[in-house]
Amino acid sequence: MDTVITKKKHNFFAGPAILPASVLEQATAATKDFAGMGLSILEISHRSAPFVAVLNEAVSLTKELLGLDDRFEVLFLTGGASSQFYMAPMNLLPSTGTACYSDTGTWSAKAIKEAGLFGNCNVVASSKESSYKFIPKNYDIPKDTTYLHLTSNNTVFGTQHQVFPDTNVPLVCDMSSDIFSRPIDINKFGMIYCGAQKNMGPAGVTLVIVRKDMLNKVDRTIPTMLDYNTHIKKDSAFNTPPVFPIYVSMLTMRWVKENGGVAAMAVKNEEKAQLLYNEIDSNPLFEGTTAIEDRSRMNVTFVMKDPELEPVFLEACTAAGCMGIKGHRSVGGFRASIYNAMPKESVQVLVDVMKDFANQNV
Amino acid sequence: MDTVITKKKHNFFAGPAILPASVLEQATAATKDFAGMGLSILEISHRSAPFVAVLNEAVSLTKELLGLDDRFEVLFLTGGASSQFYMAPMNLLPSTGTACYSDTGTWSAKAIKEAGLFGNCNVVASSKESSYKFIPKNYDIPKDTTYLHLTSNNTVFGTQHQVFPDTNVPLVCDMSSDIFSRPIDINKFGMIYCGAQKNMGPAGVTLVIVRKDMLNKVDRTIPTMLDYNTHIKKDSAFNTPPVFPIYVSMLTMRWVKENGGVAAMAVKNEEKAQLLYNEIDSNPLFEGTTAIEDRSRMNVTFVMKDPELEPVFLEACTAAGCMGIKGHRSVGGFRASIYNAMPKESVQVLVDVMKDFANQNV
Repeated sequence: MDTVITKKKHNFFAGPAILPASVLEQATAATKDFAGMGLSILEISHRSAPFVAVLNEAVSLTKELLGLDDRFEVLFLTGGASSQFYMAPMNLLPSTGTACYSDTGTWSAKAIKEAGLFGNCNVVASSKESSYKFIPKNYDIPKDTTYLHLTSNNTVFGTQHQVFPDTNVPLVCDMSSDIFSRPIDINKFGMIYCGAQKNMGPAGVTLVIVRKDMLNKVDRTIPTMLDYNTHIKKDSAFNTPPVFPIYVSMLTMRWVKENGGVAAMAVKNEEKAQLLYNEIDSNPLFEGTTAIEDRSRMNVTFVMKDPELEPVFLEACTAAGCMGIKGHRSVGGFRASIYNAMPKESVQVLVDVMKDFANQNV
Repeated sequence: MDTVITKKKHNFFAGPAILPASVLEQATAATKDFAGMGLSILEISHRSAPFVAVLNEAVSLTKELLGLDDRFEVLFLTGGASSQFYMAPMNLLPSTGTACYSDTGTWSAKAIKEAGLFGNCNVVASSKESSYKFIPKNYDIPKDTTYLHLTSNNTVFGTQHQVFPDTNVPLVCDMSSDIFSRPIDINKFGMIYCGAQKNMGPAGVTLVIVRKDMLNKVDRTIPTMLDYNTHIKKDSAFNTPPVFPIYVSMLTMRWVKENGGVAAMAVKNEEKAQLLYNEIDSNPLFEGTTAIEDRSRMNVTFVMKDPELEPVFLEACTAAGCMGIKGHRSVGGFRASIYNAMPKESVQVLVDVMKDFANQNV
């Protein structure tokens, strides 16, 4: 028997990413028979009462977990965060208005590119010249800015806003890789969006949270499907929503709630991250790639001091069942994604591989 | 025990709709462990080799089943057919160009509304004044038309193009509810699109087939995610695609192929439709709602001559395990959707309910 195949797998993929085992069990059960209907969830109408209940629960769990009040609308759309890069300015930024952007990585840069199609896009901060190793801070936001766009966690580079800036301007924030991972002060945000496939569910659904007073300030013509108002009026069911991805996302939110909510997630995420960063900092073979104060609790990036050892270490990880450790192609090295659903035990397995590898190679 | 709950269910939902039993079994298995990876398909990277193989197979099966040659690109996107209502003219119709539309129902009308945002939208045919009971034929297409847009099957009203018009203009066709249900002459088409959730798979993925020479004729600025070229260049993986909906769609296409391809589907679909239409025509209680020559083989719409009996008949259907029979809210009466995956035996169950009901009520 091949031990690589039979060993328990530890899922460090950056996204689509690990989901809680109990969520996967319920998702599997629903593909056989959903809600006692005698039909699979894959073949039922989105207007059937059991699915309408799922959609409503997904909205209410989002509000409860993030502490949203009635100022906010919650939508479940498709197209990923990549579609919000243009839909946010299309819906929120007047042609003569200015949006400020902080360029903290690959995804910020893509958002900046799209914003320029709709209004003035003012890049007020950037760590691009430093290979995105840190999160810029203490920059000025000009008056009359419509919003400040941030990427809360940079999946590729492994940096994260530990604190969101204090400003009078509403934040529009891509939280694709750290939604539901910690408490946030919702009063700072005019809009939050995320692709599901890191901390919220499987690929195929996009969460959009928008404060109502951000809307209806543009006069451009917007195709029906791209207008947030369309989906608000129809409770995310103007057209057929992605039924199964929404269901699994709802199950994952239930799991977050049952496990203490986002505050409890933050405690566990901090423990897991410190376990791994401590090993990176104390192990003679490894080093982190980002500014220590901006280290992501979701995506831990590191390299080996001797790059020639990297393929050998990757093999050792694979042999131990650690999957998805290879760094993003644009950065190299390693990236361990340790989202909400990642058990501390799996992080310990990786840490043990690092320790063993040092014992054998130092 | 309640017989409604325990009886085998016959899924007549209009969409999301019935999927083949063997596809549901494989989908369920993959939510536990996909391709021997030791992980669920819901939590694996879209760049992992097993999923890249799925995406490639979905493209090649689409080409094989529909007889597409190298003139065509095949994309798996999101946003449903509703998003193609604006993406098609955005990508294909120059601002000074004219597209012709045939208005054959709810979805055609929505497509017409969006096309007008991008160029001249010329509605060359319509059955709106006749409550969309038939498919208009023998209309003129002006010279210099960029494309003629059709809805091949009208899910709400139960009509279907049995023949596509002969014209020198390329057809752009919404085939959401009859893709893979019959052979088509691909030479007539410049673009075909469909939401998956009727004949192709679960909700959450959209198939777009576009002939290359239709592209690059517009000079408007298109956001990156809305440009077909973006997704062509990246083989539908520019951003994270909807992994699971694509997987289940691929399984469904495999099932179509294993069961004889679209020609064999057409034979079975014709048999099922005739079985049901024969009962509607011969049963004294029922009548069809559309022109006989335009009757859909996918969505069979009918009413009762005595509308007061309709709720009683609906109860009889439910008691027999027939689900999703109630007509669309805009039409009333009944609609039995009998897509590829619907077994003839289930249609027979519905026919038997109709016969029994007539015996008891005439």
